[in-house]
Amino acid sequence: GLLLAQRRAFSNNKVLVELDQSSGVATMKLKSPPVNSLSLELLTEFCISLEKLENDRACRGVIFTSALPKVFSSGLDITEMCGKSTEHLTEFWRAVQEMWLRLYGSSMVTVAAVNAISSPAGGCLIALSCDYRIMAESPKYSIGLNEAQLGIVAPFWFKDTFVNVVGHRIAERSLQLGLLHPATEAHKLGLVDELVPEEKLLDRAAAVMAQWLALPDHARQLTKSMMRKAVLDRLAAHREEDIQRFISFTTKDSIQKSLRMYMEMLKKKK
Amino acid sequence: GLLLAQRRAFSNNKVLVELDQSSGVATMKLKSPPVNSLSLELLTEFCISLEKLENDRACRGVIFTSALPKVFSSGLDITEMCGKSTEHLTEFWRAVQEMWLRLYGSSMVTVAAVNAISSPAGGCLIALSCDYRIMAESPKYSIGLNEAQLGIVAPFWFKDTFVNVVGHRIAERSLQLGLLHPATEAHKLGLVDELVPEEKLLDRAAAVMAQWLALPDHARQLTKSMMRKAVLDRLAAHREEDIQRFISFTTKDSIQKSLRMYMEMLKKKK
Amino acid sequence: GLLLAQRRAFSNNKVLVELDQSSGVATMKLKSPPVNSLSLELLTEFCISLEKLENDRACRGVIFTSALPKVFSSGLDITEMCGKSTEHLTEFWRAVQEMWLRLYGSSMVTVAAVNAISSPAGGCLIALSCDYRIMAESPKYSIGLNEAQLGIVAPFWFKDTFVNVVGHRIAERSLQLGLLHPATEAHKLGLVDELVPEEKLLDRAAAVMAQWLALPDHARQLTKSMMRKAVLDRLAAHREEDIQRFISFTTKDSIQKSLRMYMEMLKKKK
Repeated sequence: GLLLAQRRAFSNNKVLVELDQSSGVATMKLKSPPVNSLSLELLTEFCISLEKLENDRACRGVIFTSALPKVFSSGLDITEMCGKSTEHLTEFWRAVQEMWLRLYGSSMVTVAAVNAISSPAGGCLIALSCDYRIMAESPKYSIGLNEAQLGIVAPFWFKDTFVNVVGHRIAERSLQLGLLHPATEAHKLGLVDELVPEEKLLDRAAAVMAQWLALPDHARQLTKSMMRKAVLDRLAAHREEDIQRFISFTTKDSIQKSLRMYMEMLKKKK
Repeated sequence: GLLLAQRRAFSNNKVLVELDQSSGVATMKLKSPPVNSLSLELLTEFCISLEKLENDRACRGVIFTSALPKVFSSGLDITEMCGKSTEHLTEFWRAVQEMWLRLYGSSMVTVAAVNAISSPAGGCLIALSCDYRIMAESPKYSIGLNEAQLGIVAPFWFKDTFVNVVGHRIAERSLQLGLLHPATEAHKLGLVDELVPEEKLLDRAAAVMAQWLALPDHARQLTKSMMRKAVLDRLAAHREEDIQRFISFTTKDSIQKSLRMYMEMLKKKK
Repeated sequence: GLLLAQRRAFSNNKVLVELDQSSGVATMKLKSPPVNSLSLELLTEFCISLEKLENDRACRGVIFTSALPKVFSSGLDITEMCGKSTEHLTEFWRAVQEMWLRLYGSSMVTVAAVNAISSPAGGCLIALSCDYRIMAESPKYSIGLNEAQLGIVAPFWFKDTFVNVVGHRIAERSLQLGLLHPATEAHKLGLVDELVPEEKLLDRAAAVMAQWLALPDHARQLTKSMMRKAVLDRLAAHREEDIQRFISFTTKDSIQKSLRMYMEMLKKKK
């Protein structure tokens, strides 16, 4: 029927995209079991999908969510950082940067619909980079940039994005302690904009999206760009240094050890 | 009598100024029916009045309010932007800049007393540029930088002023959606500092002013300048580019059309 | 016994330091009756003590508090600014800068435990420069940067530190009015992170410290440095100008007069 014809889907291995042409709203669902780790493959698909949507005049907004129950994304895939060559680490980190540059700088309206036991690190970054964050209300769910818990330092552009959302004082404490904030606390801190019952998550995301799409695109896009330009430019200007910093930090024996221990712990949890 | 002699008033067509020499407090009332649009004429009078007060050693603080009931200011006068020459647009925008540079950079204590069905765009900017904002408590009243609703982009220095007041996250959403926040919400967001019953608005403004004037001027002025200098300097350094940006944006066919539609809508409302 | 052997104390005239080697936590207690004024002598001892701890691998965190009841610190010692030579003012201000550079830039975890009738100016700065601030809950206690009350301007780096904690709008008003915020208000504004009953202050500080020390040091230190570097670098780059500004402001007749009046007032209060 007509309604079906209005929907276009393209799917890769790890990112499902569905575009509703009548509303101009796409949904990007991460689907990389068990925990949507941001592997090089997922990141690459994410960037390609986002670029396709960005260039598609039929698409004005994207809702980011997960195809897996109770998982949004576990963050960067640690296996991409353990015992890998400099070339691999370079390629991986460039993909992480690319993902953020495209998402934080997207001219489309971006809404994160987060339902997750835990949404750490890179998963939290995806949410922070959207225009609006909705989270399923449950005492079991949490979100945060928990790099410090792993002995890792969040890069400056994670930090800049975080400060833009929650302010300096909250970011400073949260980053130093690597806190995962329970949903209610995350809402109180401004880390998520809204809590909803889990079964209403996607409906609410669609309603919020409709509110944002009621505005003319051009002025909204210029406004968004004005708000985010300083922080985007900063990574663009220091991209290679940021890769070098990542490599020299990640390849340290102590960090490699700490990452392996964390992987072991994750395996035992299963 | 003596009390009368202590008051000096000077009035232009659109801005009424009364200085109480005993307290050192002036009141500037916008009076340009029907909605205190910030026309070139009003802006020019505003700047001249403010400069007079700034140079008057008898004046230490200014309360900004409206002489019209239920209206603070509807914002920039759209008729000044529709079908006008480059020369006119240049003169107009320079006057808008001048108003903000003088008000945000004023060494006097500035308090906004806002009672308005709606206080959008330029009207909101006046309030944001004061040291303190008091608003009449009514579910009918609202305030915000709603440029995006008109398909217009708030200039970077509106944005900088807004971010200084409400922080980055709230400014980002509010500017992109062109939100007019109801009084209670505006207070919760920090966009206004205090809500009072409408009949107590000016009394409360006077009481707040007295609190601020209890401090020695010199240290307070240097402190204010230290807080606002970075944002003031940014416009001062990019004034001509900002004018060019305004002209090239405003003279676009799509924007001219959108402004004309908005004017039609306003006429029908009356 | 073993427990006693694990504690090392070094004491100067005005700063008591006790390091618990088992936990890695030091406590620095200001002890300069009657009000822990930040004199040149106290500041010098403070810096030396902090440097010792910083270089002591057994020390990972410092709790800052007062050895005097109901007093944290009255702030900078005004007698150091009254009728003194340029050489003395230079030495004094350099010591104030040094204290802040070391404390705000400390790689250790820093927790302020504030119990004070009033914690103004320099006393507040010490608290603001820590990672976490706990205050005894009492309607009699207050904290703030009250320089403006004395006709003095807080230097830009006091301001930067304050803005990082409470944001621009609150800092702007608080600094201009030289407000001392009662404990409950200070907590609401984010100026202190937590209120506790006075008798539990140090226990709670120890518990918070334990939470912070549960994290690996290295990543936490790099994260802290990333958060604070911009503000620290700004003073480091403008240190001599800042000293000159302090001297030319402080030696003004009007300021000298205002400081003498303040000292008289303090004497009468006793």
